[in-house]
Amino acid sequence: MSSIGVSERAPLSIDWRAQRSAIDRELSSLCDRHANDLGPQLIEAVRYALLGGGKRLRGLLLLAAYRAAGGTADASALAASIEVVHAYSLIHDDLPCMDDDDIRRGRPTAHRAFGVRTATVAGVAMVPVAALSAFRAARELGLSDEQSANVAGELMHASGAGGMIGGQLLDLDAEGSDPPVEDLERIHRAKTGALIRAAAVIGGMAAQALPAKLDALAEYGDSIGLAFQIADDVLDVTATTDRLGKTAGRDLDLAKGTYPRALGVAGAERRAGELVEQACRALRHEGLLNEELDALAHFAVERAS
Amino acid sequence: MSSIGVSERAPLSIDWRAQRSAIDRELSSLCDRHANDLGPQLIEAVRYALLGGGKRLRGLLLLAAYRAAGGTADASALAASIEVVHAYSLIHDDLPCMDDDDIRRGRPTAHRAFGVRTATVAGVAMVPVAALSAFRAARELGLSDEQSANVAGELMHASGAGGMIGGQLLDLDAEGSDPPVEDLERIHRAKTGALIRAAAVIGGMAAQALPAKLDALAEYGDSIGLAFQIADDVLDVTATTDRLGKTAGRDLDLAKGTYPRALGVAGAERRAGELVEQACRALRHEGLLNEELDALAHFAVERAS
Repeated sequence: MSSIGVSERAPLSIDWRAQRSAIDRELSSLCDRHANDLGPQLIEAVRYALLGGGKRLRGLLLLAAYRAAGGTADASALAASIEVVHAYSLIHDDLPCMDDDDIRRGRPTAHRAFGVRTATVAGVAMVPVAALSAFRAARELGLSDEQSANVAGELMHASGAGGMIGGQLLDLDAEGSDPPVEDLERIHRAKTGALIRAAAVIGGMAAQALPAKLDALAEYGDSIGLAFQIADDVLDVTATTDRLGKTAGRDLDLAKGTYPRALGVAGAERRAGELVEQACRALRHEGLLNEELDALAHFAVERAS
Repeated sequence: MSSIGVSERAPLSIDWRAQRSAIDRELSSLCDRHANDLGPQLIEAVRYALLGGGKRLRGLLLLAAYRAAGGTADASALAASIEVVHAYSLIHDDLPCMDDDDIRRGRPTAHRAFGVRTATVAGVAMVPVAALSAFRAARELGLSDEQSANVAGELMHASGAGGMIGGQLLDLDAEGSDPPVEDLERIHRAKTGALIRAAAVIGGMAAQALPAKLDALAEYGDSIGLAFQIADDVLDVTATTDRLGKTAGRDLDLAKGTYPRALGVAGAERRAGELVEQACRALRHEGLLNEELDALAHFAVERAS
């Protein structure tokens, strides 16, 4: 049975576990490579953040998009670089000045384990590490320096102000208010969607896909990124802390604007389903819908049920 | 009289004020360019951090190194990108979980003005902004994509774990201890030196300097970066809060290892002077010692007297 929770759709030919292990191995090498630079204290926090498990959804997405666009080499190192950005975002999301959360993936959050100072610094240190790793990995896949710089730039752009970081703040600012659905979409497209979109697009860039295909991958990433966030909101309402590995009901505590609040649980699930269909349609139109991208799109919403 | 405080050395031909204004203009355009991405709240904090004055030493260094290496175009936009990294580092240095400082350049620090959350996020958002701006500016100077990626990579490397960010943590960890001079050098070379070194090297890269010249610029940057930090330590002991524009005597309060503690004020000043001579010697050997680089090296220590 597939550990990503899409067993009923995913044929046995997709070995998520092996792909996830390959990404984890690359994350481990990346830590080794930066151990001297980072020094003993920071590297411990970075290892904790990077090697503590996780679904590796963004990395898997990148790999699936790469193959869908014709890539045949091992892009795990590139997939690892996007997971570095994701892991950084989790560290900072959990900080006392942000969501102030104590549990993440069933363990103490980084700032609970290492202190606010080390967690803050470790998080920031991971941004240039990700950019340099992406550039290096892209070159190793045979991309030109120009293409590799574009890949690193895409990752920086998604993790920057217009993307994840900006969305994080929009999200926090919306606390205590009841934003309309359009505002929620804008917030979540930036906060969660930007990096998921980048995963799909960078996979395509690594396979040197043509612009029309990159556009389709971007639309796919956009849609499932939003679907994923809606499902996350639904999970927060319906699941237990034990199952989530992080504090459940947190969003309600923080009086955050969420989809279940705006549309009801059933309405939120319906909207997520529509987005998944839209995502797959965009890919199908460009002949890019492989089994993995189909499974990952459905995973985005089905993990909630 | 030159406003950088090197009037007795700098001939009138060096117009620091004009160069600084050009960098400030580029920082302002950079803010305009990212205003939409950043949104109203973040851009306000970023503008506050970027446009609140400052010596622009790193930017001026980059420009001087560029010209010393034969560059003839206007590299102010590239100089601005290094100031973005510096400004980010100041925001995070001042955070409650770091130095916990209230005053910077005579104004409330960013977290006092905008709150810890916005200051933290604004700081992180500036790292990818700097990388993207450096890449863009390098291309506009006619560098190839490969060369431009190297410039952005150099900046990320200096601001990353092996450089500034790592040094910041080493510095904080050394609080309350009395590290020997060798440890102090290691800390300060990373914390302050890495970005000053990068300023000199990136100036050379932008002018497409050959490796021997880049090495000389790196040695220059290394030496004056350390001299600058020593002078900073001395200033912290000898100057008033009013003159510094930040809280004086802070290092002593924090029982930080400093050069005056390790070598005495006179010993620290002597060491700084030796480093400046060493810096200039390295450049002279490669025919790179122009008036500006000479003046900037001496400024690093003379501002203290």
